[in-house]
Amino acid sequence: MTVSSFNNKEVDHKKTIIIKDAMILTMDRDFSYFEKGSLVIKGNIIVAVGELSEDELSVYKDARIIDGNGKLVMPGLINTHTHVPMTIFRGYADDLPLHEWLYEYIFPIESKFITAENVRIGTKLAVAEMLRSGTTTFNDMYYYVDEIAAIADAAGMRAVLSEGVIDFPAPNSPSPKAGLQLSEDLLKRWAGHPRISIAIAVHAPYSSSAKNIVAAKALAKKYNAHFHMHVAETRKEYDESLAKTGFTPVAYLDNLGVLDEKMIIAHGVHLSAEDIDILTQRGVSVAHNPECNMKLASGVAPVPELLKAGIKVGIGTDGVASNNNLDLFEAMNTAAILHKLNSNDPTVLDAQTVVEIATIGGARLLGMENEIGSLEPGKKADVIILDMLQPHAHPVYNIYSLLVYSLRGSDVETVIIDGKIAMENRKFTHLDEDGIYAKVEQIAIQIREKSIEMAEIIGRKIKD
Amino acid sequence: MTVSSFNNKEVDHKKTIIIKDAMILTMDRDFSYFEKGSLVIKGNIIVAVGELSEDELSVYKDARIIDGNGKLVMPGLINTHTHVPMTIFRGYADDLPLHEWLYEYIFPIESKFITAENVRIGTKLAVAEMLRSGTTTFNDMYYYVDEIAAIADAAGMRAVLSEGVIDFPAPNSPSPKAGLQLSEDLLKRWAGHPRISIAIAVHAPYSSSAKNIVAAKALAKKYNAHFHMHVAETRKEYDESLAKTGFTPVAYLDNLGVLDEKMIIAHGVHLSAEDIDILTQRGVSVAHNPECNMKLASGVAPVPELLKAGIKVGIGTDGVASNNNLDLFEAMNTAAILHKLNSNDPTVLDAQTVVEIATIGGARLLGMENEIGSLEPGKKADVIILDMLQPHAHPVYNIYSLLVYSLRGSDVETVIIDGKIAMENRKFTHLDEDGIYAKVEQIAIQIREKSIEMAEIIGRKIKD
Repeated sequence: MTVSSFNNKEVDHKKTIIIKDAMILTMDRDFSYFEKGSLVIKGNIIVAVGELSEDELSVYKDARIIDGNGKLVMPGLINTHTHVPMTIFRGYADDLPLHEWLYEYIFPIESKFITAENVRIGTKLAVAEMLRSGTTTFNDMYYYVDEIAAIADAAGMRAVLSEGVIDFPAPNSPSPKAGLQLSEDLLKRWAGHPRISIAIAVHAPYSSSAKNIVAAKALAKKYNAHFHMHVAETRKEYDESLAKTGFTPVAYLDNLGVLDEKMIIAHGVHLSAEDIDILTQRGVSVAHNPECNMKLASGVAPVPELLKAGIKVGIGTDGVASNNNLDLFEAMNTAAILHKLNSNDPTVLDAQTVVEIATIGGARLLGMENEIGSLEPGKKADVIILDMLQPHAHPVYNIYSLLVYSLRGSDVETVIIDGKIAMENRKFTHLDEDGIYAKVEQIAIQIREKSIEMAEIIGRKIKD
Repeated sequence: MTVSSFNNKEVDHKKTIIIKDAMILTMDRDFSYFEKGSLVIKGNIIVAVGELSEDELSVYKDARIIDGNGKLVMPGLINTHTHVPMTIFRGYADDLPLHEWLYEYIFPIESKFITAENVRIGTKLAVAEMLRSGTTTFNDMYYYVDEIAAIADAAGMRAVLSEGVIDFPAPNSPSPKAGLQLSEDLLKRWAGHPRISIAIAVHAPYSSSAKNIVAAKALAKKYNAHFHMHVAETRKEYDESLAKTGFTPVAYLDNLGVLDEKMIIAHGVHLSAEDIDILTQRGVSVAHNPECNMKLASGVAPVPELLKAGIKVGIGTDGVASNNNLDLFEAMNTAAILHKLNSNDPTVLDAQTVVEIATIGGARLLGMENEIGSLEPGKKADVIILDMLQPHAHPVYNIYSLLVYSLRGSDVETVIIDGKIAMENRKFTHLDEDGIYAKVEQIAIQIREKSIEMAEIIGRKIKD
């Protein structure tokens, strides 16, 4: 795997795509929405959007025309926290307490089954699932990142990827130090790629020593890379941090000097008012994962308060082992209704705000707001097209309401990333899915067998 | 509209359908699941299910064979609380407090736009949406029930329908008394229909007088019909009931003598321990609507406690104006994760329990557990077939987990109700959708115009 594998040399930068006569939701600063508009893409860049006349469109010669009648065109969704290869664990261990789930099921099985080959298979399944449900960019933390990068690149996706560093042997590195070396190798190898960028990740404040967290941050700074970490996910983590360090997880990290505008914390469920102040002052971003926080009974992140404080918030699915899918439409719906319930106020997190979080908000979190997250001339063409000729897509009073409360990931029909069509009419153009389901089921059979064996050793009840 | 319109005379009761080599989830008493099984339907009845040999299948001559490879076959889902014509209000008024939403938006606009024609159009859209997402039976409360019944019947759906009685003029009846007369007419007209049955409905304890509630219950008893009512949906309703009557909504209804095993209460969010005792003793059922309860910030129904008490619980979407769709897969997912969060216990409402509630549980609530809700020989053939050759449907460790946490309504490909194919490969066989989207959008334009006019009159801020 080297830079020479970039497949965007296939992009013809003179090629023009025009999507005509579509509903177009731009998510630009004015929230411009066109009931019948056009979008023009030249190479990998959006060059025009809006109600364009035939005259205005006629200047674009030899354009590929996509008929937008009955379609909604909008920016691709941005998944700000996930672990994509974990698709192979979808449904492996559900309805369990977080600690038992993580330490008795996920960590042991990861140590046996996270190989380069299984990461490739799991990532392929994940990329297929993300494209199918309208995600164009994802922010990932896992192991064997080179493999993840290669699959995501080949499929035409945009991604920010990081090797998870943790204070026990990881599947592909014997020590945190080796993990950081892997990260640095990745930073060098993928530098300059138009769609794949590398961040630094430490699993969590409680699973890494202060020394390793500080070393990881130093590396991130050296390369001006983002730093991605699970923080304040559970009450247990919060209470234990207080007991052990005398500080909340956020205050502890602040004392280590690692919080700044390149820091992305996943979850941020248990935050004190002081924690929110710290995050605001340091410019830290929060990746909100409403579904897995509910499913694992972790709690509710104070998203309305974070937004009020001006903190950058993105939405995420987390890994499939705890969600159990990569569908951001479902995450948007859940976020919108969860915060209404939790605030006892049905006006909280209105639909427009939720769509903002899932598009331009996610872009801001990743520092990419000048490149992606909205449909504006000069921005990169990360665009999704939804089929609106469906019962649940009518009537259209308010496009944001429709998106958040009624539309589904399965409504996404076509996906364009960096000007290239990655999926058209639900068929992948670059991703080779051949035999992927059979391969995934084969891994599942092995995992089930190993799980029974492990359960017998530790005397654990076997879950059906 | 008379009994002669029943279109099941088209059913050829000798016709046999065999679904072969499918994953089959029966939801029978033993929760039997077959990784590769067959299901045989003769006329409108399931005659065999399980791992059937070619020899066993060969006795069924001239059967239509459906290839089940890569498919999941399961009982059709049962929506135990909805108002289907309200699809025309999808997204009309969101992110508003319940009382303002109901009294300033929904009730006024209903009084102008609920006509027989608009009910037909809204119901057609709803039926299309329900079939597309795997619902085979729905329990509805609305106005112009004859129109709803005719559309549901023609589309081949199973439904329990009731005319909503309320203490102000309804769109199609000037008084509660006239509303009850409509109900009695319906009971007579639709008696004996194989798929459509009629129930009695009163909107809510706070919107009808005690006298009218008691009269409605007497009518229900006369015809041995179910009685459907919104009860204890909001804190406001609960507190006002205590203040006004000295009793909780449930205790108040119990004092009126209307609670028994034919009573279906929708919501049941605010229930005291004594209320749960009353519901248990009287054999009352609860239709749980997790999404609209969250969206309107109404609260969380104590579903784990209801189940523990042995109360029959079904799942519902409520009307589209407050959900905003009729997708029970979404409702299942939301229910499963909501109660984990609310109970601070990720083992609560496990996936199998949720699927049970949405199938055989709903059948029990409607008193139809001997006819539908599971795939067993002798039961009516209400069956859905899901396409599993999709990224988010792999791997399959646990079929319940997959259904609740990952699959979507859009995965439903084929729907069989009462032995007849109502949708095949996502195409409707009986429902004429011609021009339905355009008609719905036309109504929406009129509603938007009227809404602006009304807003000007009452000086209300116009929501975009």
